[in-house]
Amino acid sequence: MTAITALTNTQIRLASRPVGLPTQDNWRITSEGVSEPGPGGVLVKTHFLSLDPAMRGWMNEGKSYIPPVAIDAVMRASGVGQVIASNNPAFAVGDHVSGGLDVQAYCQIPGDQLKRSGLVKIDRRLGTPTQWLNVLGMPGMTGYFGLMDVGQPKPGETVVVSGAAGAVGQTVGQLAKIKGCRVVGIAGGKAKCDWVVNELGFDACIDYKAGDVKAGLKEHCPKGVDIYFDNVGGEILDAVLTRIGRGARIIICGAISQYNNTTPVKGPANYLSLLVNRARMEGIVVFDYADRYHLAVAEMAAYLLDGRMKSKEDVVSGLEAFPQTLLKLFNGENFGKLVLKVADE
Amino acid sequence: MTAITALTNTQIRLASRPVGLPTQDNWRITSEGVSEPGPGGVLVKTHFLSLDPAMRGWMNEGKSYIPPVAIDAVMRASGVGQVIASNNPAFAVGDHVSGGLDVQAYCQIPGDQLKRSGLVKIDRRLGTPTQWLNVLGMPGMTGYFGLMDVGQPKPGETVVVSGAAGAVGQTVGQLAKIKGCRVVGIAGGKAKCDWVVNELGFDACIDYKAGDVKAGLKEHCPKGVDIYFDNVGGEILDAVLTRIGRGARIIICGAISQYNNTTPVKGPANYLSLLVNRARMEGIVVFDYADRYHLAVAEMAAYLLDGRMKSKEDVVSGLEAFPQTLLKLFNGENFGKLVLKVADE
Repeated sequence: MTAITALTNTQIRLASRPVGLPTQDNWRITSEGVSEPGPGGVLVKTHFLSLDPAMRGWMNEGKSYIPPVAIDAVMRASGVGQVIASNNPAFAVGDHVSGGLDVQAYCQIPGDQLKRSGLVKIDRRLGTPTQWLNVLGMPGMTGYFGLMDVGQPKPGETVVVSGAAGAVGQTVGQLAKIKGCRVVGIAGGKAKCDWVVNELGFDACIDYKAGDVKAGLKEHCPKGVDIYFDNVGGEILDAVLTRIGRGARIIICGAISQYNNTTPVKGPANYLSLLVNRARMEGIVVFDYADRYHLAVAEMAAYLLDGRMKSKEDVVSGLEAFPQTLLKLFNGENFGKLVLKVADE
Repeated sequence: MTAITALTNTQIRLASRPVGLPTQDNWRITSEGVSEPGPGGVLVKTHFLSLDPAMRGWMNEGKSYIPPVAIDAVMRASGVGQVIASNNPAFAVGDHVSGGLDVQAYCQIPGDQLKRSGLVKIDRRLGTPTQWLNVLGMPGMTGYFGLMDVGQPKPGETVVVSGAAGAVGQTVGQLAKIKGCRVVGIAGGKAKCDWVVNELGFDACIDYKAGDVKAGLKEHCPKGVDIYFDNVGGEILDAVLTRIGRGARIIICGAISQYNNTTPVKGPANYLSLLVNRARMEGIVVFDYADRYHLAVAEMAAYLLDGRMKSKEDVVSGLEAFPQTLLKLFNGENFGKLVLKVADE
């Protein structure tokens, strides 16, 4: 093995805050040496990084559920990798781990930052590294707790999920099927729609690029929508609001249609449907459920292993590809959970 | 007493559906004779009618939580009055009652329509007739169940209520004070703001006509807004969304700012604050709580009798004044619960 001090760390840093879609100018690639971890610290070699819509929000200035990424800081990202040096008894060299590794080849985590980084060992028998960033990672946890805790699905109810072929959407739809619900996806393009129906077992999927979402909802949700898991916001949220049933629950997980707006966010004009239908719209932030991740991981890993749940990752190689790869999330190009491969295992 | 068949019933009927604010042309006044009630039926003489923002919605075509008022039908209204003839053992001549009496001098309720009309006897020892349309009536029940069931206030929390001097608003604010909350109203004009603070005991009231609602919220809700009871929608809802705290509950009771729009409803552009703050926005329709009205009435009557709760009604006289009196709700002219006096007791 190469000596640690001989390694070079490549990093993607935030150079400026984007207006609208991020461009190459918003990023800067830097290199620096790698040092041995300090007392209680751990050094992780990154294998895969998770690319998420939420990243766009972290690039903005201003208060949100976590602080923005500072200018000149390494871009925040979750990832999986392997411990290559450790001064902490909780982690041994060779351990497979996941946590906040950021967009870089190596992640030096000081002892007092370990908790904050969320670094945990992962059991490779339960899933592949990219599944640990997908169904068993943040998107999976988001889908699980959003659907189960906020949505509270009952057998026979109709669940609609937007971004159906994305990381959160695939988890939500499959989990809702396992829980006995009728599941209707909304996705962009025939390939994605066919996949969620034919491969993942959704009851139907509406191609928002091909036609009228309202008409599709009317056709595929004849009893109305009981749960809507919203990843996109905008016009699709407004369309679903016209089809919700009494006591419906709308989980606000994201609004990818609005993240790169240079005009104000479009609020849901049909929100008074909440009143007419005694319905609820509620936001979810996955970090609130950290003390129950292990329970959700155990359940979802069982579904992966017994074949009731499938996962699809869209893997792009090379740390330097980060800036243009991130854009795939916003133009709808990614098909499955978008993952950046940084190094071979 | 005049013979029943010698009485004349004056009625206000919906002549056409309004576009924007209702005009005189949307109404027609008719007269007809009064007859003895049929088998199981009851005849009620109307004393007071409740004028409510929800009436504007009932004038529109289209699906809502109750069917629209049909063209040529007597306008729907709740009221209080006295039984003047009865073929039903549940009601005796002389009983004081409240229920769906509609905008007319006498209400003939057939036996098979009694349940649907919601006619119930009222105990005049618990409140005056107009209080039975206010704190002890639909507005009071709406405020009670919206705040208690959907809002779930805890002592020390900050509650904001719009339309603070209106029927629902005065109930919500006073009840939240009794439950140990900090209460901030939003109302139009100094007189209303002074009244809710000085007479009803709110901690503060923001005059939306005089200044910046956001700045007022920042000043008067230093710990953020835990519960927002929304009667108005529009820009005020958007302003409050910027100040909600973690786990906040927004009760959507109405959107009086939007009811007479001839343009599309303005959706809350800041709705993603629900996500950041893990907050909830939920609609309420008071009829869902009918089986618990008696419990809320008992509690609120006790507060009225022991002086912890006050009520203010804005009483206008004369059935024929209905069309122009209704408009007071939409230009913010009413001060307290708007009531139409139809006849002396």
